[in-house]
Amino acid sequence: VLLGAQVPYRCYLSNRGNSIRQHQGILQEGFLQYGVDRYHETDNPSGIVNLGTSENKLCYDLLLKRLTKPDMLLINSSLLQYGDWTGHKFLREEVARFLTDYCCSPRPLKAENVVVMNGCGSLFSCVATVICDPKDAVLIPTPFYGVITEDLDLYADVKLFHVPLDCEENESGCRPFHLTVDKLEEGLKRAKQEGITIRAVILMNPHNPLAEIYTHTEIKAFLEFAKRNELHVIVDEVYMLTIFDESAVFSSVLNMESLPDPQRTHVMWGMSKDFAMAGIRIGTLYTENTELVEALAQLGSFHGIPGPTQHQVAQLLQDRDWINNEFLPENRSRLKSSHSLLTKELKSLGIPFLDRPAALFVWADLRKYLREFTFEDELSLWRCFLRHKVVLSCGQAFSCSTPGWFRIVFADQQRHLELGRFLFKLRFKDALKEIEETQSCPGSSSIKRPIEELGKSAKAENNTLRENGAPLADDRLDVLIGTLRHQMRASDWLQKNTPELTAGDDPQILDGFQALLQKARK
Amino acid sequence: VLLGAQVPYRCYLSNRGNSIRQHQGILQEGFLQYGVDRYHETDNPSGIVNLGTSENKLCYDLLLKRLTKPDMLLINSSLLQYGDWTGHKFLREEVARFLTDYCCSPRPLKAENVVVMNGCGSLFSCVATVICDPKDAVLIPTPFYGVITEDLDLYADVKLFHVPLDCEENESGCRPFHLTVDKLEEGLKRAKQEGITIRAVILMNPHNPLAEIYTHTEIKAFLEFAKRNELHVIVDEVYMLTIFDESAVFSSVLNMESLPDPQRTHVMWGMSKDFAMAGIRIGTLYTENTELVEALAQLGSFHGIPGPTQHQVAQLLQDRDWINNEFLPENRSRLKSSHSLLTKELKSLGIPFLDRPAALFVWADLRKYLREFTFEDELSLWRCFLRHKVVLSCGQAFSCSTPGWFRIVFADQQRHLELGRFLFKLRFKDALKEIEETQSCPGSSSIKRPIEELGKSAKAENNTLRENGAPLADDRLDVLIGTLRHQMRASDWLQKNTPELTAGDDPQILDGFQALLQKARK
Repeated sequence: VLLGAQVPYRCYLSNRGNSIRQHQGILQEGFLQYGVDRYHETDNPSGIVNLGTSENKLCYDLLLKRLTKPDMLLINSSLLQYGDWTGHKFLREEVARFLTDYCCSPRPLKAENVVVMNGCGSLFSCVATVICDPKDAVLIPTPFYGVITEDLDLYADVKLFHVPLDCEENESGCRPFHLTVDKLEEGLKRAKQEGITIRAVILMNPHNPLAEIYTHTEIKAFLEFAKRNELHVIVDEVYMLTIFDESAVFSSVLNMESLPDPQRTHVMWGMSKDFAMAGIRIGTLYTENTELVEALAQLGSFHGIPGPTQHQVAQLLQDRDWINNEFLPENRSRLKSSHSLLTKELKSLGIPFLDRPAALFVWADLRKYLREFTFEDELSLWRCFLRHKVVLSCGQAFSCSTPGWFRIVFADQQRHLELGRFLFKLRFKDALKEIEETQSCPGSSSIKRPIEELGKSAKAENNTLRENGAPLADDRLDVLIGTLRHQMRASDWLQKNTPELTAGDDPQILDGFQALLQKARK
Repeated sequence: VLLGAQVPYRCYLSNRGNSIRQHQGILQEGFLQYGVDRYHETDNPSGIVNLGTSENKLCYDLLLKRLTKPDMLLINSSLLQYGDWTGHKFLREEVARFLTDYCCSPRPLKAENVVVMNGCGSLFSCVATVICDPKDAVLIPTPFYGVITEDLDLYADVKLFHVPLDCEENESGCRPFHLTVDKLEEGLKRAKQEGITIRAVILMNPHNPLAEIYTHTEIKAFLEFAKRNELHVIVDEVYMLTIFDESAVFSSVLNMESLPDPQRTHVMWGMSKDFAMAGIRIGTLYTENTELVEALAQLGSFHGIPGPTQHQVAQLLQDRDWINNEFLPENRSRLKSSHSLLTKELKSLGIPFLDRPAALFVWADLRKYLREFTFEDELSLWRCFLRHKVVLSCGQAFSCSTPGWFRIVFADQQRHLELGRFLFKLRFKDALKEIEETQSCPGSSSIKRPIEELGKSAKAENNTLRENGAPLADDRLDVLIGTLRHQMRASDWLQKNTPELTAGDDPQILDGFQALLQKARK
């Protein structure tokens, strides 16, 4: 529980129920706080500006116009009756045609390979439930869209096994947070060593939160890695149409001439991001695996979509004139200009960021605002922004292995964004000032504090499986180790508490600390 | 798998996934077969007539007219954004007002106690997940709406513990299938003896499939039983407005001056039955337990409803003029006349049934068409109807403890019903004839057959916990035991296979058979 409140023992819910109820991620906390104090130009001008939730708020004028046309109001009796739990056939046919065209499939995609549910979260939950047994795990490179942790865990009891990506460009010309097959292989090996059964790997393209667009060659290599290891691949392409630079090349998995392992390749898409309607609750899965489709049909009754909504979505997807000539070009142009507004601001503040022409957010490096390179400190900075009425999303919410990175959403309405930009600048300075005023310098803090922080950083998400001992980038680690050594020498805490450890110059001391911490918490 | 096909080992799904995929109940099988061969007056006049799925198809003219009025087409940006996972506030407020009025609550009900999800199946799944731990069980009188078994089991891994109701009126004037507190107490005691943790009891009022309306006094006694035993009560009132006799008195749990245990009482309602829109996917829960609401909010993202649909439902619920002066009176009158058509038919065929002025179906006693009083024989009769293009729902789909009862839905369009009535009569005779022609008399069947049948009848639902040895009413049991004894004496199968059992006159022989059967299947 991040809110810090002590939760008393509740006698009405089960253990599982209490644990679900008390679960609170950082993304959810930010969204909840925003929910009760939303900024509004006239009604609540001092409310919270949400640059944390990945929603496209740039095109409501176009959407409202289209969605109130008379063709949207059709109702017939079959739409009011129980239907096919994988989606009405007319909708699955329309989704198949849509994906065929927009993913540039070499062959027409088939309606029977499509499953439509009320959102991609539901699809993640269902797919995890039927391709994994409880406690099995799924490989995922970090950082990643943090809500997937809950999508896989709450119902399905499936864990994520993190493959941390390095935030630094290295000498061999690797991009920051560069995903490679070697990293995946190494992660899989580590999982096996820990006795964990990995059933699948999750890929996102374009990536959330990196906004990275992977090349055809890269994706193909990842799919071949999966095939070699008999892993399912869940490819999340929910931002595939949210690319706003004409020169950027996106290649869907469904564009491949042939898939390395078609029975284990499952492609997700939805209306939330590309059509700016998270509230319409539409997620789609494309898979050639008929067993998977059959199993999903069994769980489909928990994730059904109203018949009339299915009609509306089919109408929208088949209106290619509106999509191609109105919505997509205007959406791209507005995204581009909003992105440019935010990135100029970041540049003027000297904040490094990944400059990618995709998705609804920018992944920015705020490490220079951290006093200690810990996730505790990152969280303090996040809370400080929240107190100043700006919600951002901090890196630990995405299980980033290095503290200090933030996801900043730019796809807000122009006026909000300009206001946000202004507030951002202003509040950033405020926040920074506040941090400077309130944070004591490292040397003066109590001995226990950095040790606890280190423990937290190493296991920021208690639902997930992380590697031990490497949550921090090496350079920051050095700084932290230095601080720790300094503090340990000035204290007898360690000697009192760990007769079996020597607080010497051994760099493996960090592992020792973690063992200590785990011991202390038991 | 009821379809009888041998399912080969599948290597792509997990054990859990395969088990979910291969799961097939009788209700689902009937619905699937109907799905691919639906009767249509002109397009498919020889298709299947569905008297098996509980849907109200009598009022589409009224619904289509109302649902295409211009007020239904409102869209605004907040409806397209992520919202409150328990339902938008405007909808929860409208549901609270609606339930206050139609449940005759002594005080205004509160929006914060309302949770809206995409159907009552989702609510059953969520509530079970958070009030039970895996393998915990919930008490339910049988027969009951069979899909609840899957609702509680597929995601939540929660089992049902059956409390069988007796189909015979007894000398003390009890109704058939009479539910009493004694029966609930006895069921709870039995569960405790078996070491099973019971966390809740499910009540339905009006009942599915019995169409029974419980009195205020009865329901209050059930709630007090639950309170005494610290059990949650899930009260399913989805048929509360589907009562078509002015003289019938229905009393909602929400009508009580005070609830015996408000923190453990959770009342379910939805649009599927009372507003004849199963396809609109709206289920509501009313509970004063804020912990439960908080826990459900966490799972809500898997069960979200499109914003525009939430607007439409709120519009409909607040249109009291339409509800009170158009929809409800016309719906009741049509239900009454359809019910009367079917019951006259049953009377003319000499088929006993429960005559109740509620719900969309009649619970009928077709035992006279069984040759052997087994669930196997009941299933044969059900299949025979299906071959003759009529879907009914047989008692074992509702875990009825006595074979031979069927649920027959009457709420179909007048013309369909008249056709159905005609076909029913005709096909009933055909079906009966077919059974007479193809079924050999009990004495001539192989020794293994009745033993397998008995095993199946004793554990018709492998997901549920049943009492041992008492699945059949006593009189039928006597007949069956007599047949078995006769066959055993004429065979050495038992002696060859069970050296530890003596095929004597001991009435406990039935338990022996079950043990045998389980052994043979391992």
